[in-house]
Amino acid sequence: MSFSFKVIESNRGEKARAGQLTTTHGTVNTPLFMPVGTQGTVKGVTPEELREVGAEMILCNTYHLYLRPGHKLIEQFGGLHSFMGWKGPILTDSGGFQVFSLGALRKIQEEGVTFQSHLDGSRHLLTPEKAIEIQEALGADIIMCFDECTPYPATRDEARQSMELTHRWALRCKERKARPGAALFGIVQGGMYRDLRKESADTITAMGFDGYAIGGLSVGEGKELMYEMVESVTPHLPADQPRYLMGVGKPEDLVEGVARGIDLFDCVLPTRNGRNGTLFTNDGKLVIKNACFAEDRRPIDEKCGCYTCRNYSRAYLRHLQMAGEMLAPRLNTVHNLHYYMELMAGMRKAILEKRFREFREAFYESRSTPREMPSKSGEG
Amino acid sequence: MSFSFKVIESNRGEKARAGQLTTTHGTVNTPLFMPVGTQGTVKGVTPEELREVGAEMILCNTYHLYLRPGHKLIEQFGGLHSFMGWKGPILTDSGGFQVFSLGALRKIQEEGVTFQSHLDGSRHLLTPEKAIEIQEALGADIIMCFDECTPYPATRDEARQSMELTHRWALRCKERKARPGAALFGIVQGGMYRDLRKESADTITAMGFDGYAIGGLSVGEGKELMYEMVESVTPHLPADQPRYLMGVGKPEDLVEGVARGIDLFDCVLPTRNGRNGTLFTNDGKLVIKNACFAEDRRPIDEKCGCYTCRNYSRAYLRHLQMAGEMLAPRLNTVHNLHYYMELMAGMRKAILEKRFREFREAFYESRSTPREMPSKSGEG
Repeated sequence: MSFSFKVIESNRGEKARAGQLTTTHGTVNTPLFMPVGTQGTVKGVTPEELREVGAEMILCNTYHLYLRPGHKLIEQFGGLHSFMGWKGPILTDSGGFQVFSLGALRKIQEEGVTFQSHLDGSRHLLTPEKAIEIQEALGADIIMCFDECTPYPATRDEARQSMELTHRWALRCKERKARPGAALFGIVQGGMYRDLRKESADTITAMGFDGYAIGGLSVGEGKELMYEMVESVTPHLPADQPRYLMGVGKPEDLVEGVARGIDLFDCVLPTRNGRNGTLFTNDGKLVIKNACFAEDRRPIDEKCGCYTCRNYSRAYLRHLQMAGEMLAPRLNTVHNLHYYMELMAGMRKAILEKRFREFREAFYESRSTPREMPSKSGEG
Repeated sequence: MSFSFKVIESNRGEKARAGQLTTTHGTVNTPLFMPVGTQGTVKGVTPEELREVGAEMILCNTYHLYLRPGHKLIEQFGGLHSFMGWKGPILTDSGGFQVFSLGALRKIQEEGVTFQSHLDGSRHLLTPEKAIEIQEALGADIIMCFDECTPYPATRDEARQSMELTHRWALRCKERKARPGAALFGIVQGGMYRDLRKESADTITAMGFDGYAIGGLSVGEGKELMYEMVESVTPHLPADQPRYLMGVGKPEDLVEGVARGIDLFDCVLPTRNGRNGTLFTNDGKLVIKNACFAEDRRPIDEKCGCYTCRNYSRAYLRHLQMAGEMLAPRLNTVHNLHYYMELMAGMRKAILEKRFREFREAFYESRSTPREMPSKSGEG
């Protein structure tokens, strides 16, 4: 098993840490943000462009690839890496979050989740065993346990029941996992209850996985509660293993996640916002369709060195967006991903230079929007 | 005026010729195909990618850019070249073809064409003078006279009336043209009547332009008639000036156009077909959505060296197309444009090596589809 993780630096009095994660497809630097390549492509950009913006590892979605083109086909092609042409590490989710999101189209039982395809209505059963089988066929470097994403809001009883189902499924995933070369991560649930979160962390870590994810957050609970839940979990995760905050988030969430000891993130926000023309800058967000940019000769962000900012004015990008041109989502996505990658690289550098606290303060000071939620914790 | 054209080679007994066309934005090699960048972008691809596929000059549409973002705005940005980041030569059409295509939304009079915007219904008057003014503001290297695209079918009288209007407008365009550094091309009309085509060629060339275009073809008349009309015009155009067959065409049309002495072409076909997943190969066309490609490990065209063919299988491209992924039209467009550019480069090389006749024969022999219209003329 070639998977390993090493914490290289953590600042005195801080939970933030910089590390290196090694997989069969190379070593990546943490803290790290994974662009989302739902259907075997990060929408609109090539693998070469992902490299150029600084992406090191990407996430692909098991649910989508299972339905189309099918994991068996991708396996025939030597796995996702060769199918899509991405040479770096890939993490796949378990499909759990997507099938739960189907609402009325799915039914959760002990065995697994019965659901109808959003594409053609066909019926499928996704079980912990099946989720592992699919992910192993896809050939991901990091695969995830099949879990139930606890609904929000949920009563304590509901959250406990859901968490316990996730725990039973985690064991089944661990037992089913067969392929060497893939790392299996456990997922901590527990809703918005600190004690359940701790109990889940203790239970999942006792089972022993290659890394640990925090699931069920960024589901509408608000930043304060999300950060509180992260804080209630990370102290109970092994210090020498990677920690992954699933589906998060906004730039400030990445900073606050790192401040609480998170190593890995993924989110559709930079790519989806890119397609909609909402752009991240060092001064805050910018909606490129706004009339004020019609004659603006400046790049999206004067401090940015991405391909888009090196070559195009806000006026041109606004024109492309207004005209519905395909080049708009593409150029915007390149910029937004570059912003996210630079933010992560900046945090990593700050940690290595023992100045993460200063970085975090400067991050908020530079933004035109006020800091949304000053940390109440002691780590920054 | 830095515009010039030079015929370098023409094969004995053939009308095909290889040349060089020099503009303020550099020298390009003819015969040449111009990708279409309607709204100031060749859909889905960057200027760097255009260069990589071998594009030397592109066409942009006056009608679209006049309405959005407006020629005045583009002029403020130093013209289309700097606005869109394309450093090579640009040819703009006059807007004529687009406003005639509006059907009920436009009215043609001696003064010009009154039309309603397809975007917001606003009313506009496009005259020969206005068409030149807009194109000069856009900063194109080659600008076109405002002409009436004669409807098809048309009676001889209708074709004559339309042609004579085009001639009167051509004079007004020539009188209005002011900007040095831009070349103005006249347009030959005349419907599907050989004698009118000759008359139009004689009249337009007598006015004296920097180059000559053949308009009003590829409008549903069929290949035989189109080729016949081209043949009836080219002998009446000056041998030492560039000839441009507007809005044409399919790969075989390019070969047949070159065989009849055409130097320049433009068409939306490679880009539009690319977006739809219809791909050009050395063996004919291929519809990537077809089920037979689901497990096909080969590139689109094994003889092709484009980025898409170097990196992706038909199976992956089919998956992207079926999934509606943005990367599909982009990768397909790169391939189709590369195919067109290679075809033109192949013709040019053949002419320079005095073997155009052999090239033309081999072109038809290599295609799985039979030659659609054997030439009746003597030039190949």
